Amino acid sequence: MIKVTIWNENRHEQTNPDVKEIYPGGIHNAIAGFLKEDFEVTTATLDEPEHGLTEEVLNNTDVLIWWGHLAHDDVQDEIVERVRNRVLDGMGFIPLHSAHGSKIFHVLMGTRTGELKWREADDTERLWVVDESHPIVDGLPDMIEIEKEEMYGERFGIPQPEELIFISWFSGGEVFRSGCTYKRGKGKIFYFRPGHETYPTYYQKEIQKVIRNAVKWAAPNPRSPKIHLGNVEPLEAIK
Amino acid sequence: MIKVTIWNENRHEQTNPDVKEIYPGGIHNAIAGFLKEDFEVTTATLDEPEHGLTEEVLNNTDVLIWWGHLAHDDVQDEIVERVRNRVLDGMGFIPLHSAHGSKIFHVLMGTRTGELKWREADDTERLWVVDESHPIVDGLPDMIEIEKEEMYGERFGIPQPEELIFISWFSGGEVFRSGCTYKRGKGKIFYFRPGHETYPTYYQKEIQKVIRNAVKWAAPNPRSPKIHLGNVEPLEAIK
Amino acid sequence: MIKVTIWNENRHEQTNPDVKEIYPGGIHNAIAGFLKEDFEVTTATLDEPEHGLTEEVLNNTDVLIWWGHLAHDDVQDEIVERVRNRVLDGMGFIPLHSAHGSKIFHVLMGTRTGELKWREADDTERLWVVDESHPIVDGLPDMIEIEKEEMYGERFGIPQPEELIFISWFSGGEVFRSGCTYKRGKGKIFYFRPGHETYPTYYQKEIQKVIRNAVKWAAPNPRSPKIHLGNVEPLEAIK
Amino acid sequence: MIKVTIWNENRHEQTNPDVKEIYPGGIHNAIAGFLKEDFEVTTATLDEPEHGLTEEVLNNTDVLIWWGHLAHDDVQDEIVERVRNRVLDGMGFIPLHSAHGSKIFHVLMGTRTGELKWREADDTERLWVVDESHPIVDGLPDMIEIEKEEMYGERFGIPQPEELIFISWFSGGEVFRSGCTYKRGKGKIFYFRPGHETYPTYYQKEIQKVIRNAVKWAAPNPRSPKIHLGNVEPLEAIK
Repeated sequence: MIKVTIWNENRHEQTNPDVKEIYPGGIHNAIAGFLKEDFEVTTATLDEPEHGLTEEVLNNTDVLIWWGHLAHDDVQDEIVERVRNRVLDGMGFIPLHSAHGSKIFHVLMGTRTGELKWREADDTERLWVVDESHPIVDGLPDMIEIEKEEMYGERFGIPQPEELIFISWFSGGEVFRSGCTYKRGKGKIFYFRPGHETYPTYYQKEIQKVIRNAVKWAAPNPRSPKIHLGNVEPLEAIK
Repeated sequence: MIKVTIWNENRHEQTNPDVKEIYPGGIHNAIAGFLKEDFEVTTATLDEPEHGLTEEVLNNTDVLIWWGHLAHDDVQDEIVERVRNRVLDGMGFIPLHSAHGSKIFHVLMGTRTGELKWREADDTERLWVVDESHPIVDGLPDMIEIEKEEMYGERFGIPQPEELIFISWFSGGEVFRSGCTYKRGKGKIFYFRPGHETYPTYYQKEIQKVIRNAVKWAAPNPRSPKIHLGNVEPLEAIK
Repeated sequence: MIKVTIWNENRHEQTNPDVKEIYPGGIHNAIAGFLKEDFEVTTATLDEPEHGLTEEVLNNTDVLIWWGHLAHDDVQDEIVERVRNRVLDGMGFIPLHSAHGSKIFHVLMGTRTGELKWREADDTERLWVVDESHPIVDGLPDMIEIEKEEMYGERFGIPQPEELIFISWFSGGEVFRSGCTYKRGKGKIFYFRPGHETYPTYYQKEIQKVIRNAVKWAAPNPRSPKIHLGNVEPLEAIK
Repeated sequence: MIKVTIWNENRHEQTNPDVKEIYPGGIHNAIAGFLKEDFEVTTATLDEPEHGLTEEVLNNTDVLIWWGHLAHDDVQDEIVERVRNRVLDGMGFIPLHSAHGSKIFHVLMGTRTGELKWREADDTERLWVVDESHPIVDGLPDMIEIEKEEMYGERFGIPQPEELIFISWFSGGEVFRSGCTYKRGKGKIFYFRPGHETYPTYYQKEIQKVIRNAVKWAAPNPRSPKIHLGNVEPLEAIK
């Protein structure tokens, strides 16, 4: 059974009554709620020791989901490095929404923070499927409508996605590459845009299905090749 | 000087007075009008012998621009094959708008015709730049607004673009991958969406700039490597 | 259970005693032999009516494996079109070795036949894994050595692979992109190089594992989104 | 005229007589020697103040070439950040050979150091062109042979190249993705493998041509779009 760790900054939920009302147990528990049927799920938050991401936790994680926003800078560099190494060694990684601004996302992408447009104005969002062959869209309609969401607009400062799966349309006039896959080392990464803390997005069935599919896709190969690196002898037997 | 041939079906202009009013000399001459300052430009149309695309014309073409819509099926397979071979041998190719449904586009893409949504309802279109490093966006703003255009919507049945340069937003609620590059053999291809025949899109300065930039980008290498194919001897001198 | 159809030209096996000795039941049955434990397998060959690829057969196929060489031109265009449509509608497709020259491969790639180097001289081939995160390499070593094989050398006239999984080294001095994925419509495609008819390549365990993994990867989504195409009304409720 | 800055660690040249004999003025001056006809060239080295990469120098650089090996860790993080920001803002970047292990390469790629095979054993290297449409291969043969070089072998721990231009074959049995392009923000990146300090590789005409072509390709757009980021108002005039 795939082992999922859901990491959440968990700060808005403590300080903003509106967010607390929507996600009384925190965003991490809302996500755990719909994943625990299919996967072995644990959670971790910023204010735990080592942000809840000890070596032991990460070594027992197949796929790490990440939600952060306000406090990206409070994440210790040492933990960021630890997470990065686990991704390169095969752990799947699913940054959600404002995790585009997290240290770990930038370290893996080779980019810098804050490179997009945004607006909190109850835009309607429509996520159009552009890669219908991908396992992440299994069981979805060809468009997901979210009645109200924060807007994110291009140009989004990411490397060209290896696979572009969703493009969002916003009622205020913008578009966004909302579902993007990357590989780094043995690890698979899926960035998924929706999920501002002041909207009940993670209760929407199609959004849950995307995240569930993404966990399955991002789980590492059970028997990934052992790669030999460093100084090597010539192979013999050239005929 | 780069040699451009602009191919146009040139049928709407003969039969639809509204189109004739907008493009009295045909779409091909409207495009030639803004390209001829920078390039050596000729035009060709469907009803000429060999559709105006003789071996001699194609051998003297660095970049071929293609506009077709009503009469894709009237293009002879032999000419399609001739164009394909020239693209594989290095000629740049710029299919515009409804050329997504042309035989030559499908032959080069590996897809089939008609796979998109569309609507003629005076939608506003906004083309957002998503690849700001690309020479095709040089000198552009970060968004091109076209007041009224035909809508094209996803899922667009194309292979994943090698470079995605523009994404369109439409006021009616759809998105579209509007500027896409591909390579086939030695040839570079740029699909560009705008330009329905009932709107004066090709008179808009930013649209002209995109096409001008695309011609420069798609022009072949002057001294492309001579590739040796077929049955070969082993290379000697393995130490 | 994934339904696999293995298509083989099955001509060398009739006319060349050396090939018959290696593959007495034909290449298709050699491949069926190692796939049938995990999948529901049937075979089809060129000389059957409709080449064994009736509408019914294809509609009951999740993944089609293709081996052809001598007789690419004997495959009827109508069947090629039928196969292409099934791929675009979601059937996985795995062309092996000289299937790079088949009509169906070119129709899906947008290329033309014969664009590579080759040599029949008992080269040693080494397939190096370059994408260790991919499910197709699960359970493999980081290099597969085939003692003797036909050489294929670059430049291989394919579109840039969407994922490049293996690169081959040949003792005579060449390299080749030996494991390449593409998507076309809802269908996933994996080209895999090894398997010249005069060598017992399909009996090698690692080669069998690659093909087995590829079948799992190429199988279609069970519930792929229903895509709405054609003329559409504007979406309502733009706020 | 394109402004090129060539950065060199310049340590081997001081301490290893063999290297000094091959590159008496340092690798940076050998490269400057063949670039100065076509470009405005300056050089910078590790032991200069700020490693020779002041704000002023970088702001006057269109394309930065980077050669480093022994002393990657001696490059200050502050300068690495400065270089990264200039790349994201449009400066071209050409890391050569062992620059794959530099901090700046990893920061831009999202990877970590040392992930490849290597051997110093006078292997013969052959770089095969696999993307014949690319401006970087203009004027080249379809294969470049280097009589003796250090071997680099896969798996190379890089993100999948956006364009793969060269694949190397080594006489000892390995392959390597030797010419790879990426984009980050407005900046274009070309990694090029050859150039171990104990071989006279940078005197070879074809290698010089590759680097010259790469500088032209990596130079930024003269008038790159001004991208508006951050909090934005809705666009008006939705019809």
